[in-house]
Amino acid sequence: MIAPAVRVALVGAGRIGASHAALLARRVPEADLVAVADPRPGAAAAVAGPLGARAETDVDAVLGADDVDAVVITAATPAHAALVAAAAGAGKHVFCEKPAGSSLDEIAAGRDATARAGVVFQVGFNRRFDAGFRAARGVVDAGGVGSVQLMRSLTRDPGSGPADPGAVPAWTIFTQTLIHDFDTLNWLNPGARAVDVMATADALIDPDFRGAGHLDTAVVVVRYDNGAIAVAEASFAAAYGYDVRAEVFGSGGMVTVGDGATTSLRVHDAVGRSAATARGDVELMADAYTAELAAFASSVQRGEPAVVGGDDAWAAYAVAQACIDSMTSGARAAVARP
Amino acid sequence: MIAPAVRVALVGAGRIGASHAALLARRVPEADLVAVADPRPGAAAAVAGPLGARAETDVDAVLGADDVDAVVITAATPAHAALVAAAAGAGKHVFCEKPAGSSLDEIAAGRDATARAGVVFQVGFNRRFDAGFRAARGVVDAGGVGSVQLMRSLTRDPGSGPADPGAVPAWTIFTQTLIHDFDTLNWLNPGARAVDVMATADALIDPDFRGAGHLDTAVVVVRYDNGAIAVAEASFAAAYGYDVRAEVFGSGGMVTVGDGATTSLRVHDAVGRSAATARGDVELMADAYTAELAAFASSVQRGEPAVVGGDDAWAAYAVAQACIDSMTSGARAAVARP
Amino acid sequence: MIAPAVRVALVGAGRIGASHAALLARRVPEADLVAVADPRPGAAAAVAGPLGARAETDVDAVLGADDVDAVVITAATPAHAALVAAAAGAGKHVFCEKPAGSSLDEIAAGRDATARAGVVFQVGFNRRFDAGFRAARGVVDAGGVGSVQLMRSLTRDPGSGPADPGAVPAWTIFTQTLIHDFDTLNWLNPGARAVDVMATADALIDPDFRGAGHLDTAVVVVRYDNGAIAVAEASFAAAYGYDVRAEVFGSGGMVTVGDGATTSLRVHDAVGRSAATARGDVELMADAYTAELAAFASSVQRGEPAVVGGDDAWAAYAVAQACIDSMTSGARAAVARP
Amino acid sequence: MIAPAVRVALVGAGRIGASHAALLARRVPEADLVAVADPRPGAAAAVAGPLGARAETDVDAVLGADDVDAVVITAATPAHAALVAAAAGAGKHVFCEKPAGSSLDEIAAGRDATARAGVVFQVGFNRRFDAGFRAARGVVDAGGVGSVQLMRSLTRDPGSGPADPGAVPAWTIFTQTLIHDFDTLNWLNPGARAVDVMATADALIDPDFRGAGHLDTAVVVVRYDNGAIAVAEASFAAAYGYDVRAEVFGSGGMVTVGDGATTSLRVHDAVGRSAATARGDVELMADAYTAELAAFASSVQRGEPAVVGGDDAWAAYAVAQACIDSMTSGARAAVARP
Repeated sequence: MIAPAVRVALVGAGRIGASHAALLARRVPEADLVAVADPRPGAAAAVAGPLGARAETDVDAVLGADDVDAVVITAATPAHAALVAAAAGAGKHVFCEKPAGSSLDEIAAGRDATARAGVVFQVGFNRRFDAGFRAARGVVDAGGVGSVQLMRSLTRDPGSGPADPGAVPAWTIFTQTLIHDFDTLNWLNPGARAVDVMATADALIDPDFRGAGHLDTAVVVVRYDNGAIAVAEASFAAAYGYDVRAEVFGSGGMVTVGDGATTSLRVHDAVGRSAATARGDVELMADAYTAELAAFASSVQRGEPAVVGGDDAWAAYAVAQACIDSMTSGARAAVARP
Repeated sequence: MIAPAVRVALVGAGRIGASHAALLARRVPEADLVAVADPRPGAAAAVAGPLGARAETDVDAVLGADDVDAVVITAATPAHAALVAAAAGAGKHVFCEKPAGSSLDEIAAGRDATARAGVVFQVGFNRRFDAGFRAARGVVDAGGVGSVQLMRSLTRDPGSGPADPGAVPAWTIFTQTLIHDFDTLNWLNPGARAVDVMATADALIDPDFRGAGHLDTAVVVVRYDNGAIAVAEASFAAAYGYDVRAEVFGSGGMVTVGDGATTSLRVHDAVGRSAATARGDVELMADAYTAELAAFASSVQRGEPAVVGGDDAWAAYAVAQACIDSMTSGARAAVARP
Repeated sequence: MIAPAVRVALVGAGRIGASHAALLARRVPEADLVAVADPRPGAAAAVAGPLGARAETDVDAVLGADDVDAVVITAATPAHAALVAAAAGAGKHVFCEKPAGSSLDEIAAGRDATARAGVVFQVGFNRRFDAGFRAARGVVDAGGVGSVQLMRSLTRDPGSGPADPGAVPAWTIFTQTLIHDFDTLNWLNPGARAVDVMATADALIDPDFRGAGHLDTAVVVVRYDNGAIAVAEASFAAAYGYDVRAEVFGSGGMVTVGDGATTSLRVHDAVGRSAATARGDVELMADAYTAELAAFASSVQRGEPAVVGGDDAWAAYAVAQACIDSMTSGARAAVARP
Repeated sequence: MIAPAVRVALVGAGRIGASHAALLARRVPEADLVAVADPRPGAAAAVAGPLGARAETDVDAVLGADDVDAVVITAATPAHAALVAAAAGAGKHVFCEKPAGSSLDEIAAGRDATARAGVVFQVGFNRRFDAGFRAARGVVDAGGVGSVQLMRSLTRDPGSGPADPGAVPAWTIFTQTLIHDFDTLNWLNPGARAVDVMATADALIDPDFRGAGHLDTAVVVVRYDNGAIAVAEASFAAAYGYDVRAEVFGSGGMVTVGDGATTSLRVHDAVGRSAATARGDVELMADAYTAELAAFASSVQRGEPAVVGGDDAWAAYAVAQACIDSMTSGARAAVARP
């Protein structure tokens, strides 16, 4: 007896929305993509058409549709919290891209609203679904690194940086980019809680924006209550492509994960030996994106909580919020307790 | 306007059949798995049930069914030729696991029958669909290795060898295992034709079967008409997992492809640094299997010839046949001309 | 016409002294090891004997000997400053293991004394002589990483930590271990000056010593006046061997350096693929140690300043001193200006 | 008590002679380079001068000199046998570059003459002294690959091939290049004996020389009496540098060895990730060359047989001779028994 496919509406037909929509339609048998919604004229249609889903500009209509079991939110971050609330209000299961809101309160509200509605609430921390990162966590769980002492997680976006640095919202590097690393560090140090952070950040790619609140390069030191000292690091412009890595070092050894090579091909020529490196997140994380969406649909089918839910979203955002506090004060800042 | 999904029946519910069926049902949006057929009672049902397809023990009924556009043949090799013929006779498109028949004549017959029927005929040379191998071919096509001089392709099956070596048909190592490498070598040396081979093979895993025609370890040297000298190598028992690699060396450099590491995880402990290696073909080649089935469905949708078809099947088998001749004579053997 | 070999006396016949003595005697043709001095009875003899050098317990006698051109100081750190001063006073060229003194003042005094004496003064920052690190600097110099934005340098000592953690002098992790990383970061960011640091450190290997001033794990964030943000990281106990790596990331790309694998051997077995990792500093850095001693002798022969001298020693120590200040205050601490 | 350094005369001041002379003078404390001999005017002086050794054009004078304990022969191959005989006749220990003669008889004569003279006779199979290859043999000895079934050894010379292909003596690829691989295969398959070979070779770099006996590309299949099937492969022109690798596969797993990367540096830029690859044998094998010369001097000091001696030289040449036979007959050729 097979559970029926979860009927999914996707809200927000931007770059990542288009990618998620295609994966839902083509690679996740547990889900059917029934609708794509985006208030911008034509945006939804461009994504939905080739995938056989209907397009809507009225997001509310989609959230309330009878043939929709679950909503995947890939809209711009400021809209996340309201969409989560509306979806929960309509009794729909919710997958929300990170961050799940624009403040700890928003995220807590979404978490609580979905809990009250009894729907699944998953947040898009895709690294938890990458085969290498999962294997790393497996080694940690099995005691392979002993007690965790030093950690590293980094995110470097491919390319040469934002087209319009001035248009990037303040603190984006913490709340949108490093939020992945904060969740990764929390998750790879199971049972431990982030205590405080010291953030160092600057506008190094676009120094003209220095002082205007624009940050494109950051290093964050996070201390955990089990003593572990973690470094999260981000840049908006890696010439060699999307770079996502992690390292967990402990009394028993170390695990490392992340290798930007796109395939096993190595070219040997007069220059030396070279490997093509991953160009973008969609390329590097394709399998992880697929796996997280499949896990979401599967949780819905089985009526179980999401593997990565509201508490995780809150905990990662709490570290990001502490970074903002640390940047403001120039000193270590405490991470809020759940 | 989206082309309708290709309605596929799979014939032969063994290990690889079960894998292909799941991929067709879950990962290939261009295809719908409608039926699984296997004369062994219960075999088809075990595969078809969880995938929502119907199960049949009467293969002919499936081949003739109106709701079937295409047939994927994963039965035992001796049945391939007859199934290809029957499917072509019924006007169904055909994907056949390698080898596409048990002799050059059988393969030629299948190729010609499908051509006369005007149906797509694809053979399961999956390496052509692996991202690394494709990239290697891309470098060759772009002139990155210059003129091809030396090549290597190898296949080592995971585990400790056949459970019952005596039950393995004669020449299996050439016709079933190295056939992959022969196609790979042909394909990575575009425009060239295999001229002759010298085969060296033995029963090293199971020496008791030496002399009884059982071969479990082989090295084949293939000469091409562009001068390239290629080595194909196989073993039935690699303790560290499925090992599939290739190397193309030429006047301008070299490409290598194939890396058994299952993920980017590296574990560093008192023993050193280690990577888990791939355990089986289904694990290592999952993406390639998916891609070859998607390519097949796509060729059907577009009404175009298969990317790897009857001539390729024949050319690879011609090398395998020459290996049999070489083993029989103890000398170099010519490869049949198309 | 070949310059005569530099006649060297080594002072301090401990572990690293024994290694340096053997390299001087056997691998550095520009040097002759003539004497080994150590006040501990028998210590010098054990090292000097097999190498054909004379052993002395009276260090002053050696410093003043006519047949000694240069002194290599591998004594315990507290003795460094006095030995540098004495050697300079005797007109001997000086190679001193890091750190070159126990305070910024001591190091400045040594630098100035050797300058006044007109002798070569080199400090033992061996990573500058490792082929990989040198190549990394070469890429930076050639503009290969563009403007430097993010850096990382780490040192993890092999084994399970100090036998007697209580006997390790306070701040050792900064002044003796991370001093290597501070110099590496300074050197890989040519022309820039360290501005301030934020240190995070703890006793994680030996938590019983927490609070008693013992630190065995540390992460330091260093900001440079060109905007670069660097992380230096250390641990006294890496189960998998000596781990020394660096990473320089900039607007044009990234260089990474450091690979603990002892040889190119890879073993593939039922566990996966593994490489033995370096066990100790003497093993991993053998070529770098040789090269730094050869460079020292060569500077003496040519009458040129050392490639890495007193100013470098001072600059690295200034970062270490700022770490002590940062640990004391719990806040960022300024790095002293030269 | 230290054994006195072995006083060495080097005969043949060509490219490899110059390299060996420098290593003997500077990196091998167990040896003193006292003389360099070469009949070509000026050749010996150019090498000997900077190293503080005397230069001679009269080779016989050097062979008979009282202050010479041992001779290192790096002359052209045709002169090897006569030089070995003369040195043995003069009671000098002999290190001879490979091959130790121009025929099996010559090599046997040298082996026997040195044995009668009671002097050490070592042949320059340097891979046995490379740390990675040694470690590979260690794993084989420890049973890590189980019973050996498949082997591979390859040599690809850096660059674009011989400046004057017509001047390369016939069969050079077997007797001078692949001789390294034949010894490596023999050595990595301890206790087994090569039974027969099948050689495939051609002029692919310089096709104009095809048919004129010039061979620049070769693949040799060697069968051993323990069943192992080995492939030795060579090319005179690898665009990416000197490429030396080996692989031993058996019932328990596999070892691989050989990595052309010159250092641990990896450069990541818009092209991808790259490593510089080794440019030449002297660069890649520097440590192995040093180790083999040190081992020779050490054998002399201790009065023990060479680690790799006349029987090994003969056994490797026997495989090369069988290749010549195989090329001549076009069939498998037996390897001579010792």
